[in-house]
Amino acid sequence: MFGNTLYAEKIQYALEQASFPSTPDNLYDPIRYMLSLSGKRIRPLLVLLGADLFNINNINDALPASLAIEYFHNFSLIHDDIMDNAPLRRGQVVVHKKWNENIAILSGDALLVKAYEQLASAKAEYIPELLRIFNKLALEVCEGQQYDMDFERIDSVTEDQYIEMIRLKTSVLLGGALEMGAVIADAIPSDRTHICNFGVNLGIAFQLQDDILDIYGDPSTFGKQIGGDIIANKKTILYILLKPKLVEIDDIQEFEKLLTDKDVESDEKVRRMKNLYQKYHVVEEASRLKEKYTHLAYKSLEKIGVNESQKKELYSLADNLMRRTQ
Amino acid sequence: MFGNTLYAEKIQYALEQASFPSTPDNLYDPIRYMLSLSGKRIRPLLVLLGADLFNINNINDALPASLAIEYFHNFSLIHDDIMDNAPLRRGQVVVHKKWNENIAILSGDALLVKAYEQLASAKAEYIPELLRIFNKLALEVCEGQQYDMDFERIDSVTEDQYIEMIRLKTSVLLGGALEMGAVIADAIPSDRTHICNFGVNLGIAFQLQDDILDIYGDPSTFGKQIGGDIIANKKTILYILLKPKLVEIDDIQEFEKLLTDKDVESDEKVRRMKNLYQKYHVVEEASRLKEKYTHLAYKSLEKIGVNESQKKELYSLADNLMRRTQ
Repeated sequence: MFGNTLYAEKIQYALEQASFPSTPDNLYDPIRYMLSLSGKRIRPLLVLLGADLFNINNINDALPASLAIEYFHNFSLIHDDIMDNAPLRRGQVVVHKKWNENIAILSGDALLVKAYEQLASAKAEYIPELLRIFNKLALEVCEGQQYDMDFERIDSVTEDQYIEMIRLKTSVLLGGALEMGAVIADAIPSDRTHICNFGVNLGIAFQLQDDILDIYGDPSTFGKQIGGDIIANKKTILYILLKPKLVEIDDIQEFEKLLTDKDVESDEKVRRMKNLYQKYHVVEEASRLKEKYTHLAYKSLEKIGVNESQKKELYSLADNLMRRTQ
Repeated sequence: MFGNTLYAEKIQYALEQASFPSTPDNLYDPIRYMLSLSGKRIRPLLVLLGADLFNINNINDALPASLAIEYFHNFSLIHDDIMDNAPLRRGQVVVHKKWNENIAILSGDALLVKAYEQLASAKAEYIPELLRIFNKLALEVCEGQQYDMDFERIDSVTEDQYIEMIRLKTSVLLGGALEMGAVIADAIPSDRTHICNFGVNLGIAFQLQDDILDIYGDPSTFGKQIGGDIIANKKTILYILLKPKLVEIDDIQEFEKLLTDKDVESDEKVRRMKNLYQKYHVVEEASRLKEKYTHLAYKSLEKIGVNESQKKELYSLADNLMRRTQ
């Protein structure tokens, strides 16, 4: 768990208090199930940390927006899992397999509405602005997911296109969560922009790191199968940086073979793809890109006009996320 | 087209002005397509008529909520069509067939967010209350759709359960649309309740009529295949009223045969099921139920504390909807 234990407990308690109707059970049981799978609850925590940074009087005022963000995240996971045909989420059977696809579509929809219901329970004076930020990020997350699906079928995705996709799909939610906290704490517009940029850039850096850890992570702590992205032919930043560098015919053939030849064993495939990555210094390049966005994140945090000591929690959060080398 | 031509044109113009981004095209093209299939636009009109009833100063102030309702309706159609595995909508190929299911799920999600974006563009002072009403009806529509799917697999659905299902699935949207208009026109709480009840009861009556017209409609004007519900074994109000009345063994067997025997031709099936409906006076009973809810709707309209002449449009709308006997 990252950050403030008190805040993490507040979020957990609020999630438990915010009960759902018992019927129709096929609509609300999947929601209860999904929320019970827990996850790290980083996103709702960001709302509270955003509010805390600007010295909110009563942190409880930020809980509705915090829950809205967590509900939204879980809604997007339910629907993404259908689209990605994923079997497991957080080690458990996904909603559309435990129930069925129709139920997953509809309970996802209901959970999105429940997110807006949380927003509606914020202090009235903040609702219009919270709603504006939330709508923007929600739409961007949809756009990111669409680009991600589109990219599976496109032959050449550029670095810029990839960064934009992960910005939309995963990072604007972090930036938006922090900014919503800042809004509720009456932060000035320039500080709202800075904290949002902090979250967005940190999110991009984190996603790039996730791509790198696919081949250099520690299997005991990474939480995913090492080399899983290579095995699945996933277009990670490593794949995208490598592809345009391949000019030698042997390497091009090796790359194509690894992507298409089902007879190559998984371990063998991972080993040989790593060789290509090493030959073309792709990991170093991806790491530089990760550093660039990490730096941008810290720069944004620096610019925020509050006392440095007040920023401790956010620095610590960023350090925790980005030092995760295992 | 029902009601005020000026208002219908305002809605059409506002829909055309509210453009969507060009990319990702797989996200926004399906939305443009769905909205272009047009439909009768009754729901957005209800928002304007609700505002008009309470003498709103500037009807344009009600347009954001009006578009929110139309977007929500189309979102629900995109997702319902996936769940119902429908091939056509308004005579055209449905989104999940023209594109695919993943695109239909995601563009539906984006359209729901777009509905909230419209709400966020209403006058700030009304946003919290509009959001509250909208969330409530949106969640109820999801619940109604879930009950509808559940009922397909339940053997005995009662009249009360059925009425509750159609109230949630189709009627609360009409009531909510009218109430949102009333809110923007500063109607007092009791009048807001009455206009909402008018819409909900009218919606229930309309849905019951739709069930009845399945067997007594005029094929040239009804817009759907006559007997289509019988052919599909749909649990309409007629089916639900008939089932518990069947006590004679011959009739029970005939009913079961018509539901299960694939060898019975469609025309024959419709004719013989109609015989059962007639023998047990089921249509008369359904019509009485329809009259009951129509009456409740008119009663609610009567109670609203504005001049009777001001109510002309809504009486006319109700008359139009409920006199549709062909």
